[in-house]
Amino acid sequence: MRPLGILPIEDSESSQRALINLVEAAVEVHTFFLHLLIILLAARIFAEIAERFQAPRVMGELCAGVVLGPSLLGWIEPTGVIKLLAEIGIILLLFEVGLGTDVKRLVRTGLSSFLVAAGGFVVPFILGFALGYWGFGLSLLVSLFIGGTLTATSIGITVRVLMDLKRHQVREGQIIVGAAVLDDILGVVLLALLYEFSIGGGINVLNASKVLVFLATFFVLAPIAAKLISQLIKHFEQITTIAGLIPTSVVSLVLFFAWLAHEVGAPELLGGFAAGLALSRRFFLPFGVALHNDPTFAERIESQMSPIIFLFTPIFFVMVGLSLNLQEVNWSSPFIWTFSLSLFLVAIVGKLVGALFLNEQWVARIIIGIAMIPRGEVGLIFAELGRVSEILTNEIYAGMVIVIALTTIFPPFAIKWLYGAYGHQLPDHAK
Amino acid sequence: MRPLGILPIEDSESSQRALINLVEAAVEVHTFFLHLLIILLAARIFAEIAERFQAPRVMGELCAGVVLGPSLLGWIEPTGVIKLLAEIGIILLLFEVGLGTDVKRLVRTGLSSFLVAAGGFVVPFILGFALGYWGFGLSLLVSLFIGGTLTATSIGITVRVLMDLKRHQVREGQIIVGAAVLDDILGVVLLALLYEFSIGGGINVLNASKVLVFLATFFVLAPIAAKLISQLIKHFEQITTIAGLIPTSVVSLVLFFAWLAHEVGAPELLGGFAAGLALSRRFFLPFGVALHNDPTFAERIESQMSPIIFLFTPIFFVMVGLSLNLQEVNWSSPFIWTFSLSLFLVAIVGKLVGALFLNEQWVARIIIGIAMIPRGEVGLIFAELGRVSEILTNEIYAGMVIVIALTTIFPPFAIKWLYGAYGHQLPDHAK
Repeated sequence: MRPLGILPIEDSESSQRALINLVEAAVEVHTFFLHLLIILLAARIFAEIAERFQAPRVMGELCAGVVLGPSLLGWIEPTGVIKLLAEIGIILLLFEVGLGTDVKRLVRTGLSSFLVAAGGFVVPFILGFALGYWGFGLSLLVSLFIGGTLTATSIGITVRVLMDLKRHQVREGQIIVGAAVLDDILGVVLLALLYEFSIGGGINVLNASKVLVFLATFFVLAPIAAKLISQLIKHFEQITTIAGLIPTSVVSLVLFFAWLAHEVGAPELLGGFAAGLALSRRFFLPFGVALHNDPTFAERIESQMSPIIFLFTPIFFVMVGLSLNLQEVNWSSPFIWTFSLSLFLVAIVGKLVGALFLNEQWVARIIIGIAMIPRGEVGLIFAELGRVSEILTNEIYAGMVIVIALTTIFPPFAIKWLYGAYGHQLPDHAK
Repeated sequence: MRPLGILPIEDSESSQRALINLVEAAVEVHTFFLHLLIILLAARIFAEIAERFQAPRVMGELCAGVVLGPSLLGWIEPTGVIKLLAEIGIILLLFEVGLGTDVKRLVRTGLSSFLVAAGGFVVPFILGFALGYWGFGLSLLVSLFIGGTLTATSIGITVRVLMDLKRHQVREGQIIVGAAVLDDILGVVLLALLYEFSIGGGINVLNASKVLVFLATFFVLAPIAAKLISQLIKHFEQITTIAGLIPTSVVSLVLFFAWLAHEVGAPELLGGFAAGLALSRRFFLPFGVALHNDPTFAERIESQMSPIIFLFTPIFFVMVGLSLNLQEVNWSSPFIWTFSLSLFLVAIVGKLVGALFLNEQWVARIIIGIAMIPRGEVGLIFAELGRVSEILTNEIYAGMVIVIALTTIFPPFAIKWLYGAYGHQLPDHAK
């Protein structure tokens, strides 16, 4: 028993330290709440402003990130918890896309998607490499990285623009979705090749094909497995007395397939897409006549998942804006301008070429080509990898950031305008 | 231009390092997905098992945490992102409670709530202190901490049990909710006093009253401010063309009031409760005749927020289970047993006393008293503070953990059983 007066100093010091720790933990929660709040609000406000100016809402969300991030105000860093929530956001968005995808149509438009993806992959790679190597006299590795960055397609931005315009389920929308998925797969293979090349100096075709075989297997088996799990969820939904089964079990399913995708070497968001495909109303197993799709179950999933998807997806697009640090660009350097503008032209032409050879109406071909142009977060990952590994100098990196920003900002406007002016020529056009 | 063969070693080393960084970032995302998935699934599975054994589902979720955490499997640590998501979970749960609260009834039962809260605060504090100081001959500060820990009421667990039994909107449910909120406020004041006492050795009554005035002001003004903001949301919902306004804006509102609560020194979850109160169907401003409540708006909020609430709240209860490290207890020490069991009795009796003096039916009095017993996460915060500041020895801390575990585990069962056996005697009893 120690009366009040002779409380030793150590005790009070350590309890003060402990309280500081506790306060710091509380401050962490506190700051996180404030940041999340600012992100959600800013995303909404900028989306509403974008809408007033006839721009797609995703543009507003990207701008919110640019304004809040290091480019302008510097309030929020693109790190930590927010980044993880953004990842959930993009995976849930791809889940929603999968949910709205008609598998039969996806297979029917598969060849067109493949043409667009392959053309939009090979042509920008060659043009970007050539521009760097011969045009600007850069090293082999740097030129390969420039080419690699130009192959990227931001599946998130592309798909979001289509959804905002309600065109993701029509023919050209499905070609674009399919092509964006294929492009992401090709991107993973390229990243694996560039990695091998930059550390070993050579390329092992066997390894590359192994990655491809893994991915192909995943894409055939994942929707079937997800479908079987969804039957389990449906079964338990009928017998459980505890509310809230669909939100937790469907989010778990999506997280599981994202995790599984990563395990086989694919981008996590493709796991979300596979899970969405399996739960869509129009998904049929090749031999599974017994697994009839229940439209009311699909509707319940859609209505209960949409608030969660609405909550998380804007975080992702704000995050892309936050990651785009325009302060790093030295705007007075003439090299930056010639380099980035010529690269920008190459970035556009490269993605358009594949689409122009399609057997579609001209408007559709141009829309499809333009939809593949945004590099967004995928391009940023490539460029960032080049920078941190010191393959790209700061100046070249800044040029790449400009190109990524331009390719991300201009297509949403162009697509919206094209649909407005020429959309009535398309067969699926809804009045 | 540097051909392949003479690629310098530094380049490949730094690119390898960069790739390791990138891989680590990806692993972080990857692990987070896996942990979140395990938490969501385990919470559900254990809740279903609990339901089979006639136990409330929150018990299952707590057990899931105990099994996954350091007590048993040690798969998941109660830290980082999961902790922040759990915080969102408990705030959203309190928001839901606020949403279902009838303000008029809350005011009408206010005196009873105050009696229960004050009794359940003062009595356990005195008994706990006396047991430590005179019963076990512990120091003044240690005894104060023991008393302080026993004052806690886990508003989350109490309220969740009532919701699981659909009794949170009836008379005794409202008394309990009101008392739990008041207890949380008193707990903050006590923590502030203990803090001052442990660092300065004295108590400043002026500071304590300042905290109380702040909290009272917050509780009067916050729901009114939240109500005005909700009118804004309703207005924008009518004019916006962009889907998903309710999820993002309501979550933002809740986060804002949680942040504001923290700014005035109140627990964040009370901010969520205030926001919920303001948006409830039965909230009326004292002078705001013009602000008519729109039942369909309240319904839209409920239907769109419930999947989000269902998703986040189990994370919180799993987190409480994760934080309860039963490995720290030396089960063979006789002191542990006498100390924790006598403290457990004091913890039960202390909370029952206040309720027994209420002017209610006997069943209601006992249910109200028992509902205040769970110490849960609030008790853990107190005990943890005592441990890290080295005021509590490991042995005493372990004893406290046992008491907290027992008080958290037994009331849900007791309440469920009491409602089953004697619930028909209560006026609000629904067949």
